[in-house]
Amino acid sequence: MSSHSIEEICSHIGSEFPSETNVIIKKIASLKNADSESISFLTKSSFKDDLQASKARFLIVRKEDSHLCDGRGIIHENPYLAYAKLTQLFNPRTPLKPSIDPTAIIEQDVVIGKTSFIGPFNCIGKMSVIGEGAIVMSHVSIGSNVRIGENTRVHPNVTIGNDVVIGGNCEIFSSASIGTDGFGYAESKEGEWTKIIQTGAVVIGDNVDIGSNTVIDRGAINNTIIESGTKIDNQVQIGHNCHIGENTVIAGCVGIAGSAVLGSGCKVGGAAMILGHLHIADKTTVSPGTMITKSIKKSGEKFTSIIPFLEHSDWLRFASKLKQFGKKHD
Amino acid sequence: MSSHSIEEICSHIGSEFPSETNVIIKKIASLKNADSESISFLTKSSFKDDLQASKARFLIVRKEDSHLCDGRGIIHENPYLAYAKLTQLFNPRTPLKPSIDPTAIIEQDVVIGKTSFIGPFNCIGKMSVIGEGAIVMSHVSIGSNVRIGENTRVHPNVTIGNDVVIGGNCEIFSSASIGTDGFGYAESKEGEWTKIIQTGAVVIGDNVDIGSNTVIDRGAINNTIIESGTKIDNQVQIGHNCHIGENTVIAGCVGIAGSAVLGSGCKVGGAAMILGHLHIADKTTVSPGTMITKSIKKSGEKFTSIIPFLEHSDWLRFASKLKQFGKKHD
Amino acid sequence: MSSHSIEEICSHIGSEFPSETNVIIKKIASLKNADSESISFLTKSSFKDDLQASKARFLIVRKEDSHLCDGRGIIHENPYLAYAKLTQLFNPRTPLKPSIDPTAIIEQDVVIGKTSFIGPFNCIGKMSVIGEGAIVMSHVSIGSNVRIGENTRVHPNVTIGNDVVIGGNCEIFSSASIGTDGFGYAESKEGEWTKIIQTGAVVIGDNVDIGSNTVIDRGAINNTIIESGTKIDNQVQIGHNCHIGENTVIAGCVGIAGSAVLGSGCKVGGAAMILGHLHIADKTTVSPGTMITKSIKKSGEKFTSIIPFLEHSDWLRFASKLKQFGKKHD
Repeated sequence: MSSHSIEEICSHIGSEFPSETNVIIKKIASLKNADSESISFLTKSSFKDDLQASKARFLIVRKEDSHLCDGRGIIHENPYLAYAKLTQLFNPRTPLKPSIDPTAIIEQDVVIGKTSFIGPFNCIGKMSVIGEGAIVMSHVSIGSNVRIGENTRVHPNVTIGNDVVIGGNCEIFSSASIGTDGFGYAESKEGEWTKIIQTGAVVIGDNVDIGSNTVIDRGAINNTIIESGTKIDNQVQIGHNCHIGENTVIAGCVGIAGSAVLGSGCKVGGAAMILGHLHIADKTTVSPGTMITKSIKKSGEKFTSIIPFLEHSDWLRFASKLKQFGKKHD
Repeated sequence: MSSHSIEEICSHIGSEFPSETNVIIKKIASLKNADSESISFLTKSSFKDDLQASKARFLIVRKEDSHLCDGRGIIHENPYLAYAKLTQLFNPRTPLKPSIDPTAIIEQDVVIGKTSFIGPFNCIGKMSVIGEGAIVMSHVSIGSNVRIGENTRVHPNVTIGNDVVIGGNCEIFSSASIGTDGFGYAESKEGEWTKIIQTGAVVIGDNVDIGSNTVIDRGAINNTIIESGTKIDNQVQIGHNCHIGENTVIAGCVGIAGSAVLGSGCKVGGAAMILGHLHIADKTTVSPGTMITKSIKKSGEKFTSIIPFLEHSDWLRFASKLKQFGKKHD
Repeated sequence: MSSHSIEEICSHIGSEFPSETNVIIKKIASLKNADSESISFLTKSSFKDDLQASKARFLIVRKEDSHLCDGRGIIHENPYLAYAKLTQLFNPRTPLKPSIDPTAIIEQDVVIGKTSFIGPFNCIGKMSVIGEGAIVMSHVSIGSNVRIGENTRVHPNVTIGNDVVIGGNCEIFSSASIGTDGFGYAESKEGEWTKIIQTGAVVIGDNVDIGSNTVIDRGAINNTIIESGTKIDNQVQIGHNCHIGENTVIAGCVGIAGSAVLGSGCKVGGAAMILGHLHIADKTTVSPGTMITKSIKKSGEKFTSIIPFLEHSDWLRFASKLKQFGKKHD
């Protein structure tokens, strides 16, 4: 962590200076772990008792909590957001010296920004463009005619298929597969499966994060689209032709089947599933582990289908009653 | 896309020529997006209204719908299958010039077909055999004594363990792991776990597709087997000693626990789970998100255990009632 | 498989010699597949009839079953554990000649044990330490300041982030991602997401196995911790700040959300989910497919929330009744 004056900190998060200035802060800490060189913050989930007991030099709080801070309060309407911004101030990314590792294999007609970093054992297919400031770490396979935007980071062992477009300031984490073939086959009378060649691509906006080991299929005919600002966690599967709106967050282990359309500002909990061809309205929240089987038209609602877990012996009785319930005719 | 005469198209899908011939078709399109240089098709899910409104030059339809086509109809008993075949005609795979990239590390006694393509940064272990026309893209680790059949494609960042056998015309997508150790341990009195060395391999038939980031464990003693024609989507986990029959399709995020036996022609929906040691009859359909906990003996049936999702406030009430229901004694 | 005298076998598993000695055993087999050169074993799930019919030369059994063995019995209190130990005796790992492949890229101030094996196309970041006897196969990306313990094996295409610590005798399977960023963002009033820089690391004890394509996030501020003896299967997702105790086993496709704390000796079934910030007591068993939504305080219990699957037509009726049940007001 770097050190910063309280004035610099306040400017960075857009808060007014506290009465005490000319103080150097060395770290960000939780209320409990903070010491006199720390700045801390009160979130919804913190206890106000912890606030008063905290040894932090400064405390980022909402206006209504500032009276609890003994003059240490820094007022911000969203202390958790202020904390997020401070993690960026205190942990600046080590700049990588622009370079192309001599082991990288760059095919013909590739354009690489002068300030880009291309690490070892990468392959970049013909006609691809790597934007200024972009970082391609190592063991990355980039197909032909791919566009990677400015300052985007691609972590090791990622595979990016032909014709994929990724915007600026994105981060693609290790072993993600972007632009793999969608799962499309037609069944013959004899039960054999004929592959439908997947000719669409994947188009990803700006400021999108794609987690480790996540897979995004290329479209069958049209493109699979992920709009700007969307954040996708690890182990997620997004089928061909999906269209995910802006600023949507998708937690780990989620599966979204082909041709599903998600709105903007949605929140999809871990291991939730969304069936294919559904339309999910803006700002929908899907609880973890919930399977969405029908389109959702009204925006801003939250949906759940979790079954409460039970001690196993209770569950055995419950499952047996539930089966009876399923069989009984009214 | 390449262009093709309507005669060539009809020959390719096995349909009779339409009355109008000597026409060049430039693309395959959906009914709505088609123009006068397109061929389109009517599937079950399309609307017949769209058929008549379509601007496609030709329309692939079942015999009973040909009267709706104003002479543009091309009759096929399975228009969706005809479409799949046409995607292959219109999008021939770019042939890769047979070659072995100088960066590839090929151990001793490896046999590589004269028409095979071995891309950069691949490792191929001793005594392995890569069939004619096979393609190994880049960053692939192939163990020793592996057999890869003719015209099989292995995408980047795939790992294939020792002794694995993969048939011809298969496609193994990026970051798949084939032949990783099965999850086998014995517990001691003290709760420590002793590994059971996994000495089986994985044997995969012809025309099998394995999706991105899918994992197939090697057998504990005997082999894990995937029979010909089976298609497996992304993010699937198949445990040790599983035996999957022919022409079975397994959608994304499915988990099949160790020693499960699936028949031929099964269809397993996304995120479904099949517990270990079960036997699932031929042509069984498992709905998405459904957990199969018992063997299924009668073939051709469909099974489901999805809980309908609710608005969160309704679910809270439902979950509370359900808990009461679980506790109440009849 | 190697061959071993029955005396060597008995010494290895800690059993007394049988009356017949001076016999060479060539393989371990199941009761049914055994022949006169085999040793076999009776587990809970085996049938005693199979024991008497088995052609195995020796049979590992509990004391109470030894009378069924016609003098072939070798008594062990845990025959399955004895079997596990024998798989290790009969399948010794081929030693790899200590070496650093010339293609490997080793940054400055890296320390590599004299008996370690570093295969091709690996990258090891500055100040990292690779312990004696450790094996790094190929296409592995190891960040800077990483510690990998003695005799640990890292399979191909693995990514290990900066500052990760992995103990001795661990095995990290192909395409696993250890130390990827946790999923942490703060939401602004406008619905945009600001990344919280993840400054914690991942610390893994000794004798830990991490399956293929499994992801373990680095901590947000503190570390994500996996204690010694824990075994994690394929396709598992472990969120930032999780703390998993000793000798816990986690089956495939499990998701454990951020900041969850699991005790020691837990068993988590395939595709189970554990929500974030929960505390799960020691020796808890979670059934496959079960979602744990509340902390569990009492140790040694088993929890389940599986819904019995039904034939699809029965399910349609059941789902409809269940919805009514959810709506009805008592």
